[in-house]
Amino acid sequence: MIPTPATIADFRKVLADLPAPDAAAISAAQARNAQLTKPPGALGRLEDLAIWLAGWQGSATPRVTKPQVAIFAGNHGVVAKGVSAFPPEVTVQMVANFTHGGAAINQLARCFGATMTVDALELDRPTADFTETDAMSPDDLLAALLTGWNAVNPEADLLVPGEMGIGNTTSAAAIACALFGGAPEDWVGRGTGVDDAGLSRKAAAVQAGVARLTSQDPLDVLAALGGREIAAMAGAMLRARTLRIPVILDGFIACSAAAVLHLAAPGALDHCVAGHASAEAAHSRLLAALNKTPLLSLGLRLGEGSGAALAIGIVKAAAECHSGMSTFAEAGVAAG
Amino acid sequence: MIPTPATIADFRKVLADLPAPDAAAISAAQARNAQLTKPPGALGRLEDLAIWLAGWQGSATPRVTKPQVAIFAGNHGVVAKGVSAFPPEVTVQMVANFTHGGAAINQLARCFGATMTVDALELDRPTADFTETDAMSPDDLLAALLTGWNAVNPEADLLVPGEMGIGNTTSAAAIACALFGGAPEDWVGRGTGVDDAGLSRKAAAVQAGVARLTSQDPLDVLAALGGREIAAMAGAMLRARTLRIPVILDGFIACSAAAVLHLAAPGALDHCVAGHASAEAAHSRLLAALNKTPLLSLGLRLGEGSGAALAIGIVKAAAECHSGMSTFAEAGVAAG
Repeated sequence: MIPTPATIADFRKVLADLPAPDAAAISAAQARNAQLTKPPGALGRLEDLAIWLAGWQGSATPRVTKPQVAIFAGNHGVVAKGVSAFPPEVTVQMVANFTHGGAAINQLARCFGATMTVDALELDRPTADFTETDAMSPDDLLAALLTGWNAVNPEADLLVPGEMGIGNTTSAAAIACALFGGAPEDWVGRGTGVDDAGLSRKAAAVQAGVARLTSQDPLDVLAALGGREIAAMAGAMLRARTLRIPVILDGFIACSAAAVLHLAAPGALDHCVAGHASAEAAHSRLLAALNKTPLLSLGLRLGEGSGAALAIGIVKAAAECHSGMSTFAEAGVAAG
Repeated sequence: MIPTPATIADFRKVLADLPAPDAAAISAAQARNAQLTKPPGALGRLEDLAIWLAGWQGSATPRVTKPQVAIFAGNHGVVAKGVSAFPPEVTVQMVANFTHGGAAINQLARCFGATMTVDALELDRPTADFTETDAMSPDDLLAALLTGWNAVNPEADLLVPGEMGIGNTTSAAAIACALFGGAPEDWVGRGTGVDDAGLSRKAAAVQAGVARLTSQDPLDVLAALGGREIAAMAGAMLRARTLRIPVILDGFIACSAAAVLHLAAPGALDHCVAGHASAEAAHSRLLAALNKTPLLSLGLRLGEGSGAALAIGIVKAAAECHSGMSTFAEAGVAAG
């Protein structure tokens, strides 16, 4: 097992040497898929998902029996700029709701047999307002990445990183704008429900944050503009990669964390599938930049990992079909 | 409980007096939805699904704990016209595969906690070739409708009707063409994988079948062009309505059965949601004709109820979120 990184430089080393999927398991899964009792291709994307899972799980007959939903919460200095429809107190209130089982993600995790972990990252110490200074110091960034890294259960066979953090769509928009260019207006949306004036304030904050940047290095961008929960999700996604645990990406904020990895190392998201297209306007733009096609498009815009958790059922079903079906020979069915 | 129909006329009476959803349960569910710990609308279509379920289950806190997948199989005289890539023997072979648990639908039903029933409708007595004579006599139609009617478990809280029948995309295309007009080419597709010549033969068969029709009455169209499994699905969907059991519609063939009900009685599909958009080309056209927006679009084209079974997870998750989440007051979260 790869040792726990102790420095940002260690994280960069992990990014420079990512494990590949198991080519033999992929070949074996492809061969099996061709023999299952269905017309070729008739299970559509479920077939691709099963073969992708096979590569990361290192088995021609993958299963999803121990999915983990890992939620990270952070607070954001940029809320001082009036970018959210909810007060920042809601972050800690929602963490309590997660703990007591009352949030949407609790129901979804239970529905799909996932365990759920919650890490609240220094909620009483918000990141700095990124329009004025870097959101996180190097030590803050390291601590947040490590929180994510350590949150992943090495026994999990599928990971859904999710988040809660009033103000974090603004942080995510700033990261996306910094990494992929375009106008601030291309990347900001209504989040939990800001009005037109709030939307303008979000765009202005993104503009100011991006204008302050002195480095385009993805981890530097993350420190300058990111929230702790966004860095933690990036750390969790990276840890999952080292453990070859497949990941389902949630919405706009989770994908901003993924984007940092995507630009830091080619193929860094090969172990990730996009769970859904959020109603947050810029999410589809971000998914396109990540070359990911979402599994679901049901108009969710909640965060908490909810869209990705909903997709656990799809990924699990893909594995069950692939690994549980009979072959033509086993079933005595004419292969057409 | 509505007595079991004894004649086609009895089925027409059922269609003329369909039960409505529970308006009080819908109002109560809407009020509850507004109080749940999430921004308004943030669960997207899950919110609509939960309220729809509430109406049919007659409860402000609906749940899906006893879903049923009901599979019907039939054989088709029109296969003599070379319309399928698979021989008709595959229908009975696949029924055996269902019975032994080896098909995709078995894995999906188990994955989502559904019971599964299988009715094979006189597989050794295919329907007549509809290009030459009516596919089913009135007695055949009645028997098939009753098979579907009787297959529904009154204790189920969600129903997925599915099918197996070599040649049945041609029957479904003929029904759709007869009911909604357009050219045969608009409604035929590759089914289990016919080549271009097979596709032309399918269009010619549809043309011939529709040209033979002497009545536009939906049940007459079903008798003239339908397969037994299509009629059985229609019977099951109708029985579910009388029991106020919500239904998830599968692909092109299941939707051709639904289309018969849709044209036979206004609002006959109000208890139905479209589970997915199939890769079978005409399915999206048929969904549009039924005014249904699919929950999933993952390129499946297998039948067996597979796309709808995959959507059980979505519907179940909608109910779990709605009925399991805390309200703002319960959780002590600021409502924004």
